[in-house]
Amino acid sequence: MPPDILIAQPRRCFYYPMDPKRSSLQVEGNRHQQRHKGHPLPQEHRGYQHTDSTKPVQRLHPECSTTFRHKDTIMEIALYLIPVTLGPTEIGQVLPAYNHDIIMGIRHFIVENIRSARRFLRQVDREFPIDDSQFYEMGKHADERLFSQYLQALRDGKPMGVISEAGCPAVADPGADIVAIAQRQNLRVIPLVGPSSMIMAVMGSGLNGQSFAFNGYLPVDPQDRAKKLKALETRAWNEHQTQLFIETPYRNLKMFQTLLSTLRPQTRMCIAAGITTTEEYIHTHTIVEWKKIQLPDLSKVPAIFLINK
Amino acid sequence: MPPDILIAQPRRCFYYPMDPKRSSLQVEGNRHQQRHKGHPLPQEHRGYQHTDSTKPVQRLHPECSTTFRHKDTIMEIALYLIPVTLGPTEIGQVLPAYNHDIIMGIRHFIVENIRSARRFLRQVDREFPIDDSQFYEMGKHADERLFSQYLQALRDGKPMGVISEAGCPAVADPGADIVAIAQRQNLRVIPLVGPSSMIMAVMGSGLNGQSFAFNGYLPVDPQDRAKKLKALETRAWNEHQTQLFIETPYRNLKMFQTLLSTLRPQTRMCIAAGITTTEEYIHTHTIVEWKKIQLPDLSKVPAIFLINK
Repeated sequence: MPPDILIAQPRRCFYYPMDPKRSSLQVEGNRHQQRHKGHPLPQEHRGYQHTDSTKPVQRLHPECSTTFRHKDTIMEIALYLIPVTLGPTEIGQVLPAYNHDIIMGIRHFIVENIRSARRFLRQVDREFPIDDSQFYEMGKHADERLFSQYLQALRDGKPMGVISEAGCPAVADPGADIVAIAQRQNLRVIPLVGPSSMIMAVMGSGLNGQSFAFNGYLPVDPQDRAKKLKALETRAWNEHQTQLFIETPYRNLKMFQTLLSTLRPQTRMCIAAGITTTEEYIHTHTIVEWKKIQLPDLSKVPAIFLINK
Repeated sequence: MPPDILIAQPRRCFYYPMDPKRSSLQVEGNRHQQRHKGHPLPQEHRGYQHTDSTKPVQRLHPECSTTFRHKDTIMEIALYLIPVTLGPTEIGQVLPAYNHDIIMGIRHFIVENIRSARRFLRQVDREFPIDDSQFYEMGKHADERLFSQYLQALRDGKPMGVISEAGCPAVADPGADIVAIAQRQNLRVIPLVGPSSMIMAVMGSGLNGQSFAFNGYLPVDPQDRAKKLKALETRAWNEHQTQLFIETPYRNLKMFQTLLSTLRPQTRMCIAAGITTTEEYIHTHTIVEWKKIQLPDLSKVPAIFLINK
């Protein structure tokens, strides 16, 4: 059965932040304390006010509320897939304000790297209670039983987040294994909007966006690589399907040279590097044109290569 | 030559909005009027102040400035690819605040549909000067000469925007032809961040995100469709490449039934529908599991189908 059981749970508590500098919302009486009258207000609820209203709220207390309204949107108990920036870019340039509000409601994070996840959360909000949060590292290899344990907080009714090192989790990045387990256990999964270098590369390339394929890394062995490149080029020409692939930055120049020596002169190629950063470089030319072009230094810039006819 | 000529142009004018309600920025003297001393302040510059500072600005006057700093980011003279919402979703849920500032600096838009583009601009900012803006419709068929004419404003040093009907322009949507011409003419192209139903479907599916292909619409003829589906399934199993395709909403149920009767029992399939809307439905099961599941009514909800082993 599709797992909408959790969604159907009744709303319980809404919280307003009490710091007027951090919210433009009207606080309608300190109902939060009233609700907790008779038993002490838990320490982690300090700084929040409670209301049963369905008016927009900007913060919710994560351990106490099931759903909350963010204007038209309900925050559900779910596994949120949280994109991060693609480099040293301001958060406001690439992430919707909504993500901030969702993130503020989460205390359990499954992450690719704990240090950079913490740094990201501090960037999102300097006052994010990192020390009150749990972090679970995904590690190199998927371990179904361990991953299933990680999801216990979600099964207990607490929203969780997945954060990878750059861009969108589970796309050209770890996270898909966790999502697969959540799907198998009928847990709700909600992707948030953020920068995807793949999609932005397709957008900016001018190559066919009605049909495209992301192929990850190519083989390292020169012969295997040339063979794979030829196969991708053939598919691009036969199916008019744009083919995307990536390379470790320090090998970008080598890849560029291999592409020039391997592909047909009339194949169009886009190099999309440093997307959303100050080093952004997105250019499309035919192979014969690229041979006349001096590539800028991309040895430290993540790049995507796209080819099509 | 890579076309960074335009980027290298010196900054000329920066403008601050004068309405204090709409900006929290410090206005540093009315240099704008000073700059235009000796010749009348053009009518369209009213309401703006000029400064040569490189401090953050929130608005720029589109006809008078080449670049402006948005905190760390320079607004360049470029063809901006402007994503829109995927349905009746709040702008702040799916678009970064930065997009607002960029959009406010543009007066020339190449659009899939003029009416919905105008509606979107009003949604972005109620005070967007729509009547002072130019709209160029992309139309059904690419016409290189016409499209090249559309780009004249960009060649004249004015930023332009591309807006499609839903999500990201040029991805499963028109816009790629315009971008291709801009790339050919060495004009700068800048994709902005926004909701891509493809990427969000891959994220939420738990299927392989290291390799995936978007295939657009499948053939309508039942035999051709079944053949194509079999080919995609084979590719998914042989290459472990997640295969995505779409269907017109009113045919979603038909597609679902065809998938159940055509694919192998152990093939995993994700249905990702109404992404970012209140109808969002993202579930992954094997075909044999899907046969036991009552699909909700998706006859009016845009859906993406994803398969893999």
